[in-house]
Amino acid sequence: MVSITLFGASGRMGRAIGEVAAQRDDVSIVTDGGDVFVDFSVPSALEAHLDAAVSAGKPILIGTTGLAPAQQAAVDAAAERIAVIQAANTSLGVNLLSHLVREAATRLGAEWDIEIVEMHHRMKVDAPSGTALLLGRAAAEGRGVDLDAVSDRGRDGITGARTAGHIGFAALRGGSVAGDHQVIFAADGERIELGHRAESRIVFARGAIAAAAWLAGKPAGRYTMADVLGL
Amino acid sequence: MVSITLFGASGRMGRAIGEVAAQRDDVSIVTDGGDVFVDFSVPSALEAHLDAAVSAGKPILIGTTGLAPAQQAAVDAAAERIAVIQAANTSLGVNLLSHLVREAATRLGAEWDIEIVEMHHRMKVDAPSGTALLLGRAAAEGRGVDLDAVSDRGRDGITGARTAGHIGFAALRGGSVAGDHQVIFAADGERIELGHRAESRIVFARGAIAAAAWLAGKPAGRYTMADVLGL
Amino acid sequence: MVSITLFGASGRMGRAIGEVAAQRDDVSIVTDGGDVFVDFSVPSALEAHLDAAVSAGKPILIGTTGLAPAQQAAVDAAAERIAVIQAANTSLGVNLLSHLVREAATRLGAEWDIEIVEMHHRMKVDAPSGTALLLGRAAAEGRGVDLDAVSDRGRDGITGARTAGHIGFAALRGGSVAGDHQVIFAADGERIELGHRAESRIVFARGAIAAAAWLAGKPAGRYTMADVLGL
Amino acid sequence: MVSITLFGASGRMGRAIGEVAAQRDDVSIVTDGGDVFVDFSVPSALEAHLDAAVSAGKPILIGTTGLAPAQQAAVDAAAERIAVIQAANTSLGVNLLSHLVREAATRLGAEWDIEIVEMHHRMKVDAPSGTALLLGRAAAEGRGVDLDAVSDRGRDGITGARTAGHIGFAALRGGSVAGDHQVIFAADGERIELGHRAESRIVFARGAIAAAAWLAGKPAGRYTMADVLGL
Repeated sequence: MVSITLFGASGRMGRAIGEVAAQRDDVSIVTDGGDVFVDFSVPSALEAHLDAAVSAGKPILIGTTGLAPAQQAAVDAAAERIAVIQAANTSLGVNLLSHLVREAATRLGAEWDIEIVEMHHRMKVDAPSGTALLLGRAAAEGRGVDLDAVSDRGRDGITGARTAGHIGFAALRGGSVAGDHQVIFAADGERIELGHRAESRIVFARGAIAAAAWLAGKPAGRYTMADVLGL
Repeated sequence: MVSITLFGASGRMGRAIGEVAAQRDDVSIVTDGGDVFVDFSVPSALEAHLDAAVSAGKPILIGTTGLAPAQQAAVDAAAERIAVIQAANTSLGVNLLSHLVREAATRLGAEWDIEIVEMHHRMKVDAPSGTALLLGRAAAEGRGVDLDAVSDRGRDGITGARTAGHIGFAALRGGSVAGDHQVIFAADGERIELGHRAESRIVFARGAIAAAAWLAGKPAGRYTMADVLGL
Repeated sequence: MVSITLFGASGRMGRAIGEVAAQRDDVSIVTDGGDVFVDFSVPSALEAHLDAAVSAGKPILIGTTGLAPAQQAAVDAAAERIAVIQAANTSLGVNLLSHLVREAATRLGAEWDIEIVEMHHRMKVDAPSGTALLLGRAAAEGRGVDLDAVSDRGRDGITGARTAGHIGFAALRGGSVAGDHQVIFAADGERIELGHRAESRIVFARGAIAAAAWLAGKPAGRYTMADVLGL
Repeated sequence: MVSITLFGASGRMGRAIGEVAAQRDDVSIVTDGGDVFVDFSVPSALEAHLDAAVSAGKPILIGTTGLAPAQQAAVDAAAERIAVIQAANTSLGVNLLSHLVREAATRLGAEWDIEIVEMHHRMKVDAPSGTALLLGRAAAEGRGVDLDAVSDRGRDGITGARTAGHIGFAALRGGSVAGDHQVIFAADGERIELGHRAESRIVFARGAIAAAAWLAGKPAGRYTMADVLGL
């Protein structure tokens, strides 16, 4: 039995995690002192949660996205003292997709333009999604470039022709979409489209609980969903 | 036999129009004094072409998009003296799609969020595409709102939750895509997706020639592709 | 308060209807003698349920699909004595889509080939889905043809070239997909794609309850989801 | 300069190959005695073309699909005497996609259902497409199963629930679609979608010429597009 201290329990992801945990015998959500900390709250609350995890000497899974640089630095600092997984997306599907995107970007030349489009529910406050950025980083790694140096975000107006080698991002918002992502490789006359669709947050909640259970007892350091999933 | 004076003949659309015209017996491209003027050039050249058409007293089909307000005003002025079709997209498919989008927007309540996403080749300089804006106007008309007042363009960063009633636009660029458009209506738990794919510019060229032939001899005023296509 | 006698309560749709009803104050599920009967069971059980509804003199909403001719005849007979809605799909989105498909098929000539593709979860036993057939009928009506005379189903092997005017169906099965449908109109060089995605059965359950509430007290005869939804 | 003897020169693919060859200085199409033979004809003509290639001692690229077992056996026999590439699809994109599909099938467990859907122009006579089968074989190889033993083709009627481990195929036909393919991996709550779109046959023609040039002078044996493309 693994006990989880959950931050952001009343949010969309938090409730989904609670629902999935309630159906399992091997995990429980506790209000204090869990074996593992899980954060699906908001960026501004993250630092306090990191402090709590470090003080308790417990691993933390961070699912909150849209962090400012100082918040990201706090995550990096914590990872020197406790085990940390920072996962923009905890589904098996997205993490495998990320692997395939890296592979495709490695093998396709720069004459293949890369575009990433995602759709999420109307309440999402950041764009592009953390998962879109995760996929963009996988593509950039495959190409051996720095994502920040080649990102085209928020294309609008007289943009001029596309810059070769750039990676474009587009964000759609509406309805209750749990999260759809597509990475498009477009060359002269053909396109490869690699995508993922989540039907509900349950699939992320399952992955988050799997990751939390996996993290319990791990020594300090950075881990990834690929480690959890054995990819 | 209808003779067409074509501006922008060396551009992507211009060459496609030349190709289609060469295969037909009933239209010819002439360098001067055609029965109809057709403009697929660039916004900065449009005003001179409008002057030429007005001086010659000939109708004009305008396919150039991304106009500044002054350029748009010049089109409006010309339409008082000659017959004008201003068409962001001359395909039958897109014009029917526009009709379906208006119909859907009329019948679906404001709890259905509307998003428009398009993909075009890497050389396109404006975003969103003129066709995406055409579809956005159809949706806005269906809802009885002004598109400019509800457009969400270039979503990026901490945007906050989606504003109810807004219409979002996203632009993808890459490869040689002739033009793909999709209008998404997203409500709680379901989505309607209405889209169009053009395989090549030939389909737009055919529609442009059909429109030019239809325009020949028409009295001054505004006409639309819906008039040409009998929609 | 409308009371509903639900047949097929333990099936996928039945459980979703129970869930939605439990969250509402104005409807209740009763084991016997409801104001309205709702059937989401299996074709072989339908006739007994029709008999019960006719005996009780209560309206019935039928969501069960894949009926044999004799079962369909029993529905037709019942509709002479009680109010009946036979709905392959109770979502607002699909019923609007059906309206748009009819409209498109009416306006597009026979040079536009029509194909319908759907995806459902791995437990679904019939193909194509009742909703795909509903959309096919809308297309056939728009063209003024009989669907049975023009259906291409289960394309496999050396089929020869496509017959002009036919409507093709393809069925995908896998995972837990609640129901995705797409109607494709394909001409030379362009395609129009009209689709619907349901995230979960909740959206159908909501529509089923809306239809049941609407049916309560209606005189004998045939009604449709379009009547319920005011389309 | 490589000279190519092209069988099926008047067909859709043959004309595209002729067009691309005409724009290149390093290849020529000859009516007899080329360095390489290329066959995009029909299954019934293939055996005579294989005989001609074997007699001339020249390599052959075979793009014709929908072969009967005896025709396939003739290809296998020829490959013992000359160099042979048998390629259902000569585009870089599809061949990379095939690699990604194999990789995904290797890493995802049997709880992920695999479905393959393709769309081609209305003149195509076989279903599923040779490329769909190529992708299906890649998936089956990834899983370590025999495709023939697990194929679900032409799903129609009362099919019963999906068999675990099977790979489904669906074929759409219409318009002038050069070739769209999608492989869907569907699990409980999520889907991975891996696809390819060809805008025109030009992309296949380019790959065919690249393969023919690569084949010239190779010793007898079987080669693949992956060899040509360095995948």
